[in-house]
Amino acid sequence: MSVDTPGTTTDTPAYSRTPRTVPTRYKDRATWEQEAIHTILDGTYLCHLGFVANGAPVVLPTIFARVGSRLYIHGSTGSRPLRGASDEQGLPVCVTVTHVDALVLAKSAFNHSINFRSVVAHGTAYQVTDPEELDVALAALVDHTVPGRSAEVRPASPKELAATAVIRLELDEVSAKTRSDGVNDEPEDLDLPHWAGLVPVTTVHGAPEPSPHTTVPLPAHMSAFPR
Amino acid sequence: MSVDTPGTTTDTPAYSRTPRTVPTRYKDRATWEQEAIHTILDGTYLCHLGFVANGAPVVLPTIFARVGSRLYIHGSTGSRPLRGASDEQGLPVCVTVTHVDALVLAKSAFNHSINFRSVVAHGTAYQVTDPEELDVALAALVDHTVPGRSAEVRPASPKELAATAVIRLELDEVSAKTRSDGVNDEPEDLDLPHWAGLVPVTTVHGAPEPSPHTTVPLPAHMSAFPR
Repeated sequence: MSVDTPGTTTDTPAYSRTPRTVPTRYKDRATWEQEAIHTILDGTYLCHLGFVANGAPVVLPTIFARVGSRLYIHGSTGSRPLRGASDEQGLPVCVTVTHVDALVLAKSAFNHSINFRSVVAHGTAYQVTDPEELDVALAALVDHTVPGRSAEVRPASPKELAATAVIRLELDEVSAKTRSDGVNDEPEDLDLPHWAGLVPVTTVHGAPEPSPHTTVPLPAHMSAFPR
Repeated sequence: MSVDTPGTTTDTPAYSRTPRTVPTRYKDRATWEQEAIHTILDGTYLCHLGFVANGAPVVLPTIFARVGSRLYIHGSTGSRPLRGASDEQGLPVCVTVTHVDALVLAKSAFNHSINFRSVVAHGTAYQVTDPEELDVALAALVDHTVPGRSAEVRPASPKELAATAVIRLELDEVSAKTRSDGVNDEPEDLDLPHWAGLVPVTTVHGAPEPSPHTTVPLPAHMSAFPR
């Protein structure tokens, strides 16, 4: 797939645009480029999984991992989405991932904003039932929080794999949205005697705290922390 | 309203339980107590707003503020939810707020987890159209990111208020879920020579960075940063 806007490069791999992945506002903040979308997804492990239950929307936080153009989403926050996804027809979902990068504090209340990067993926999710794929998915979920960790812990037993609830979503109808500007004050507000500016926001992972039963030194795969 | 479980205290104010606010798994991690729910909501300004469009789920990140038992949710991430909420019958929504507190790294892949606090609120949202309520809502949205700030910036003009898209959700069918334990390893895994433990996760707001048009020193209401 390639970007389909006249005048832009056509050799940047991108996901296809559809009516629901083209925003109704701030179109210039949107992108469908695979690399940009994958980078946002790979920068966190928390997603918000939306589905419809009895006609009403439900949004649950859970963890996910990307493997190529496929998302694996942990279903343990509730068995309801898993029940739907276990049917042959699957479960329509929306998976959203958001990073907050800064508070944008303007001279007017109206122009306050947030710098952020988000990905919204629409599609039909299916429960992963094949033991080999489940093994890949569970390892990916562990490695998405701490790269390289899945090889350094006890692998899942067949019984544990059978009790692992994971759904799969192919990335296809997906877009990213980013705001990374400074303050956008009205020209007539610029000289007002108010403080305006940015407050940077970061997610910090602190120093690892070993459990009482840990007798080994911090292994190499944990050396990324604190970060 | 009071907690309705026999044997528990009946004088802690709590939201009523309904089938969709009683989780199907890990019931002991759930609470309906107002204070616990409000504390989780007040600890951030980012929520994920879920609604149904053309039969399919949509989840968008946006900012919100709590005023009493009412949530005000900014609608600028897309006009689609606002269009639905502007009807008299309102828009069924699910608003979810999540804090990640730690990675929980076990000796087995299967027992990896996340410490978190989340709130899930179900209900019908309505667009705020009354100018006075819009004024309150916009001030609350500014003050929810930086307490006291709305009084220190230029207030919204009538034209800006008319262009401010905010929806209101009464907190009624709402619950919180928390995991705050250490590592839960299997007894037979405790002596395995793997590193297990927690990695604490925090959201850090850095030092304020003034805009080029800011000529005043950092005001008192900004002294909370960095935090």
